[in-house]
Amino acid sequence: MATVVPLRHPLKTLSTSPLERLKDLVSDDLAAVNQLILQRTESQVEIIPRLAGHIIASGGKRLRPLLTLACTRLCGYEGARHVKLATSVEFIHTATLLHDDVVDESSFRRGTPSANALFGNEASVLVGDFLFSRAFELMVEDGSLDVLHVLARAAAVISEGEVLQLMTANDSTTSEQAYLEVIRAKTAELFAAACRIGALVARRPAADEEALRTFGINLGIAFQIVDDVLDYASDQTRTGKTSGNDFREGKMTLPAILAIHRGDDDERTFWKRTLENIDQRDGDFDHARALIDQHRALQDSLDRARHYGAIARDALGTFPASPIRQALLDIVTFTIEREF
Amino acid sequence: MATVVPLRHPLKTLSTSPLERLKDLVSDDLAAVNQLILQRTESQVEIIPRLAGHIIASGGKRLRPLLTLACTRLCGYEGARHVKLATSVEFIHTATLLHDDVVDESSFRRGTPSANALFGNEASVLVGDFLFSRAFELMVEDGSLDVLHVLARAAAVISEGEVLQLMTANDSTTSEQAYLEVIRAKTAELFAAACRIGALVARRPAADEEALRTFGINLGIAFQIVDDVLDYASDQTRTGKTSGNDFREGKMTLPAILAIHRGDDDERTFWKRTLENIDQRDGDFDHARALIDQHRALQDSLDRARHYGAIARDALGTFPASPIRQALLDIVTFTIEREF
Repeated sequence: MATVVPLRHPLKTLSTSPLERLKDLVSDDLAAVNQLILQRTESQVEIIPRLAGHIIASGGKRLRPLLTLACTRLCGYEGARHVKLATSVEFIHTATLLHDDVVDESSFRRGTPSANALFGNEASVLVGDFLFSRAFELMVEDGSLDVLHVLARAAAVISEGEVLQLMTANDSTTSEQAYLEVIRAKTAELFAAACRIGALVARRPAADEEALRTFGINLGIAFQIVDDVLDYASDQTRTGKTSGNDFREGKMTLPAILAIHRGDDDERTFWKRTLENIDQRDGDFDHARALIDQHRALQDSLDRARHYGAIARDALGTFPASPIRQALLDIVTFTIEREF
Repeated sequence: MATVVPLRHPLKTLSTSPLERLKDLVSDDLAAVNQLILQRTESQVEIIPRLAGHIIASGGKRLRPLLTLACTRLCGYEGARHVKLATSVEFIHTATLLHDDVVDESSFRRGTPSANALFGNEASVLVGDFLFSRAFELMVEDGSLDVLHVLARAAAVISEGEVLQLMTANDSTTSEQAYLEVIRAKTAELFAAACRIGALVARRPAADEEALRTFGINLGIAFQIVDDVLDYASDQTRTGKTSGNDFREGKMTLPAILAIHRGDDDERTFWKRTLENIDQRDGDFDHARALIDQHRALQDSLDRARHYGAIARDALGTFPASPIRQALLDIVTFTIEREF
């Protein structure tokens, strides 16, 4: 049996998690975002709100729109533009989730049946496109070319990242550098865009926008590494999060990449069979976890994530101390030390 | 007075440094490269060999061509193509050094007068171009389009990196992310190209080329961070390396960026005066070192470098154990823990 990585701060046991504290700090804005999500996924075509509602309601952390709301607040903005833009960010994210599940042929997302499993691939593709279009509509309504530039570029880079991921999927020789380039594109660029918007909306100097870009991109990389760690580490009975999805799909993530590079030829034959040929038998996932354990691949993946977390934290240094800055700093720790 | 960062392994005290051991392992090839360097910098135009000789002879570590020679050997190649290509890599590096010194208006490089100080800016620019052309000539003589693609791209990315560096120079609000992007372009891409060539010449599978790219890019990032640390940390009387060049030029490097992000408004006023306005007085460099010390910026910069070093080391995991692999692993440690 593989072991679960001991996490240094059992944040879940605190009465409120950093995520909840951040939500509390921007609760009115978050309520407005949730309202706008419902409103903008309405459609005469009955399957659209149903499918969009399924994925948006199914328990995401709303982390990306929260970052937009929090970074806007951090920049001292008092208007209302950030609500539309945070919604746009969430729509871009949701659209990529829908398309992702089709590409991965996933049957489950966050423990519930995935949209494509329930509604079919075609509907998932098209509703993803619908959400992308709604996202662009919201940006255009906002009317700032700077914001459009940042978000449109992020959307393009995400697609590039997904294609790049498709190219490296099931290639057990994937390098760590290629992995980092994939997660930077598919995850971290949207985090960076979500954060930069705060400085753009508040018309802050370029240095603040750069600081928030640095914060977002490095938080995003850390977030994705930890997500990939949890897929090998999660104790399903304890956290409710299913594990082993990446293994089953042959997705090349950091824990496997490190184990492969540190293993011997026999082990690489195992990884080639399971991840490249997707020829998987009973006990293979447990064996994969044991190898990952033996090579300290989860611990070292988390250490890699901590490096990016440290860069993200330093990036907020030039903003004056405030509850919102503290909440954002705590989110970095939470992102890395979370168990779900 | 600022203190010198204690380095964990005083490698200089070993009888042979990892760099010397690596040179020993490829000594015949290295002699051939040195011969070819002399031969290809010959010219009727007397100033060309004199100026090229000045910079090439002035004590560089030959690290980049060494990487090409060592990675080629690591891949089991037995032919002679790598000698020309390693020379090409050194010419690209030397050309950028020449142009760099003109851009930076440097008077010294590695403790001796810089080429532009001795021969004038115009000659440095033109001899840099001469070396670039010679580098391309050597690649073309090699005749592999794959190699040409990798080296030509690296040369283009270096130029991009230099321009990006020019844009961030004297901007005391430079983000850590922008810094990382600059050093990746201006330093790490050539390291990556130098290493990849080994797999290309030996016609190894794409996975080996990817592994060497990962090795090179991360070693290059670590190398540049440590170079930038040494410019604040070096004890000139002990190491012979001058320090404070980056500070005097207002170059934005990681130690300063971390100190700025961790400092207060008064400190940022100091950095703005010294690095942005280049209004520097007696004692300013010592004060800068004290601030960097107080914020643990050298230690944490080295920790950042160690992260990239760890990625570089893991990248070599799939190559069979050999003296040359060990020497390359030791070079990673040497790069990070060196004092010069």
